[in-house]
Amino acid sequence: MSRPTRVLILGGGFGGVYTALTLEKLLAAEIRRGAVELGLVSRENYIVFQPMLPEVISGSIGVLDVITPIRRLCPSTNLYTRTVESIDLQHRSVQSTAGFGSRQHHLHFDHLVVALGNVTSFAGQPGLAEYALPFKYLGDVLTVRNRLIHTLEEADIEQDPALRRALLTFVVAGGGFSGVEAVAELNDFVRAAARSFRRVRPEEIRVVLLHAGGLILPELPKSLAEFAQALLMKRGVEIRLNTRLAGATADTALLEGGGRIETRTLVSTVPSAANPLVAALPVKKERGRIVVDAHLEVPDYPGLWSVGDCAAIRDGKTGEFCPPTAQHATRQAACVAHNIAAAVKGGSPRTFMFTALGKMGSLGRRSAVAEIFGIKLSGFLAWWLWRTIYLMKLPGLDRKIRVATDWTLDLVLPPDIVQLKTDRALGVRREYFEPGQIIFREGDRGDWLYVVTEGEVEVLRSVAGLGEQPVRRLGAGECFGEIALVSDAARSATVRAVSATNVLAVDREAFQAMFASLPPLKGFVEQLIASRRA
Amino acid sequence: MSRPTRVLILGGGFGGVYTALTLEKLLAAEIRRGAVELGLVSRENYIVFQPMLPEVISGSIGVLDVITPIRRLCPSTNLYTRTVESIDLQHRSVQSTAGFGSRQHHLHFDHLVVALGNVTSFAGQPGLAEYALPFKYLGDVLTVRNRLIHTLEEADIEQDPALRRALLTFVVAGGGFSGVEAVAELNDFVRAAARSFRRVRPEEIRVVLLHAGGLILPELPKSLAEFAQALLMKRGVEIRLNTRLAGATADTALLEGGGRIETRTLVSTVPSAANPLVAALPVKKERGRIVVDAHLEVPDYPGLWSVGDCAAIRDGKTGEFCPPTAQHATRQAACVAHNIAAAVKGGSPRTFMFTALGKMGSLGRRSAVAEIFGIKLSGFLAWWLWRTIYLMKLPGLDRKIRVATDWTLDLVLPPDIVQLKTDRALGVRREYFEPGQIIFREGDRGDWLYVVTEGEVEVLRSVAGLGEQPVRRLGAGECFGEIALVSDAARSATVRAVSATNVLAVDREAFQAMFASLPPLKGFVEQLIASRRA
Repeated sequence: MSRPTRVLILGGGFGGVYTALTLEKLLAAEIRRGAVELGLVSRENYIVFQPMLPEVISGSIGVLDVITPIRRLCPSTNLYTRTVESIDLQHRSVQSTAGFGSRQHHLHFDHLVVALGNVTSFAGQPGLAEYALPFKYLGDVLTVRNRLIHTLEEADIEQDPALRRALLTFVVAGGGFSGVEAVAELNDFVRAAARSFRRVRPEEIRVVLLHAGGLILPELPKSLAEFAQALLMKRGVEIRLNTRLAGATADTALLEGGGRIETRTLVSTVPSAANPLVAALPVKKERGRIVVDAHLEVPDYPGLWSVGDCAAIRDGKTGEFCPPTAQHATRQAACVAHNIAAAVKGGSPRTFMFTALGKMGSLGRRSAVAEIFGIKLSGFLAWWLWRTIYLMKLPGLDRKIRVATDWTLDLVLPPDIVQLKTDRALGVRREYFEPGQIIFREGDRGDWLYVVTEGEVEVLRSVAGLGEQPVRRLGAGECFGEIALVSDAARSATVRAVSATNVLAVDREAFQAMFASLPPLKGFVEQLIASRRA
Repeated sequence: MSRPTRVLILGGGFGGVYTALTLEKLLAAEIRRGAVELGLVSRENYIVFQPMLPEVISGSIGVLDVITPIRRLCPSTNLYTRTVESIDLQHRSVQSTAGFGSRQHHLHFDHLVVALGNVTSFAGQPGLAEYALPFKYLGDVLTVRNRLIHTLEEADIEQDPALRRALLTFVVAGGGFSGVEAVAELNDFVRAAARSFRRVRPEEIRVVLLHAGGLILPELPKSLAEFAQALLMKRGVEIRLNTRLAGATADTALLEGGGRIETRTLVSTVPSAANPLVAALPVKKERGRIVVDAHLEVPDYPGLWSVGDCAAIRDGKTGEFCPPTAQHATRQAACVAHNIAAAVKGGSPRTFMFTALGKMGSLGRRSAVAEIFGIKLSGFLAWWLWRTIYLMKLPGLDRKIRVATDWTLDLVLPPDIVQLKTDRALGVRREYFEPGQIIFREGDRGDWLYVVTEGEVEVLRSVAGLGEQPVRRLGAGECFGEIALVSDAARSATVRAVSATNVLAVDREAFQAMFASLPPLKGFVEQLIASRRA
């Protein structure tokens, strides 16, 4: 035999990892004797167990316990912890990013399984990319958790009642499964944690769920959704039905139709978009997802397969497109693994068909809703079932033990309120301001320079006896706030957005470093400052 | 009575938190009836239990379990989770950074306890600030842990034997307590974790401890230090005595005297410097530390107190300066709290005196060294004692339970190898290159622009038949690599440092955003590119 058959899997979610897992079993002998090489490219070296993610908010499950190392699950697979940069179907190779050093990796394949999932995208909604917190990856959940603690910390010492109210308002957009589970955990956690804050009173806390439809949890039968809605309301969640999020600024959630909620914590679970790598593939797609045949192979591309959220798969029995759930992804993974093994060793492929077993949603503190084999359950029993089933499904024995321990300790210990700061200050960030919104005020401390990228702003200065007077207007390509970069003085003017304005903010450290070292740029800023002062 | 007496504590380490804790007890009645207000300013809302930090490397203690929320420990203290910006002794106020919104906080005090500790400083050693990993805060330890896993991930797929060797070499500088505990945990963890990596062989792993003296652990009696040294060597740590770290580049530890070790993981526990806030105070100092009297009050500044690592305190009995340890800080905290309570309620101050109970150092897997009340212990017994004593000392009952659980699970479960990526790419970073070091090569992919801030570099281009030919030299204020910012092409030349060179690297995204939006800067870069191409 000349060289091994190379099976390459892209993506470290349920679809990718369970394909690898199953192939390790089906092709164990071939892998052992070197006839087959199994590779998996994943951005992270772990798989996230999505159903338990919301519990990381409250810390009732430890941060590391909802994730399982892929190496431990798939010991016979070569794991490449890299980001996929491009897929070359013609040369049957995949390019991945460089690690230490700047060399890229080229991986060649005979069979390729695309299981890249989809991505979060806030495109088109002003301010959401800048200010809304997504809720998809583990890092997102840690960011939400830290934001909750940070706002409690600030509220505890804030004197201004309006700012205090905004700090203690928490908004979640999207009333499907993930939004409901997120708001339930968030509500439980904030209310429990607030008890440790001396100057935060429980009645000051406001948790709001925005939902576009007339009843939350449209995935479930009406009676279960109504149960969930009533329970959340009883626990203090304010549910705004028929309400859609339209945008955001740093301190406001903007609603469709002009409503607004002052908040510093906006979590949005709604938008997902096609993975750009999938979009770039020259294969047939259906709403951004790769169309595969009943064997999960891509028509006209032998050896190219796809499973999970990035694939458009019709169920062999019903003929309908499968929903993007973990249940379906793992079943598709088993089927694609069987079909690849058949292609390698000989054998006939299987047609994918699967009837979902049911649906479950956790509602926080000892309550859930579930529909399993057509039976509807709600409350404590559903919650008990939820925990039992997901604990069984959690990959890896050590993780099962850890989560069971977490749950046990959680019964007796108070919730954790340490704030682990993980985001480092970025040197450059984008910001969005509404018409009329103040960007900064005279007298504020400022260490950001702003460059207008879109829109228009107005500079105002106080004149004795006349109040604030407009000094000048600035448009795209012009900058303001530059004085803060060369002196420690407070802002000498107020700047307000005239129209909807996108700006680029550059922090003092980044700017000073760059401008101190590049003489022409230094000259430019000095000139600017001189002209503005004149 | 007019207004409450305000006691303000700066710093959330052992000194600060135990001062607050003790004052809450001594002044309970006064706080309750509003006669005394207690405030504490801390950058984090938790206290780190330093002795257990090294165990976070291996994950044998959970990330959150070595830290305790200050609010839970000190429920009657107003906690300000802020960074202190300046201390104004004349107006008796402290300024802290802004939180959400840009308002600063001014806190006024009648009594001020300065317990700010010291800071890590790599100043003066080329490349250390850029490449050495400090080992002081919780964030540092998480960074080290992630780096270890990341290098294992890369080594597992790296083909180049030299790069592979560098990836699997781990260097720790500093053979005192913290360096020894760090190297012990690092060594245990890397060797255990490597078993999950298919293509990493145990004999490829090299763990090196650099120590300036002739025997590690100079704080301990010779026999214990020798025991520790022998044990670490038996477990595979290569100990380089009489060796001092002089600097670093991205892939090398530079030793004093010209030696070099190729590595991607350099941990340095050595340098600490005076806190800049302490340095700015107009009080008398001794080697950067605030001189206090026998009552821990600063002479000539009534109501100003200092404890912990930032204070120069002579022990009342021996007359010697106290070492900067947690043992001393907590005892000083109790003393200063007593003396402040005496000043508030009336009573006579106490003189600080304390004989250290002993010293302990963990050596990883079931071994330690300890000297307690003059008795020397080593091996399993010392380890057992270490665990027992520190578990007792760990503040907070819930944390005790959690750590005890962690230790129990650790006996049966394998070490965790998930890599939690916490560092976001910064738009701008500093880098250091040695004379002769290649900054990038022709053909590399590049998305950084470099600005020389100090030193000189040489640009080389391959000419057919002649090899690489020098094209130009660039000095401070000049930039290179700019073409990568406007096109996706590979580097068109090689750049090499001629002398010791500091550069500022700006990533493509930050640069493009800034230069696309600021027309004059765009013009500057376009001109530069045109002139270089000509």
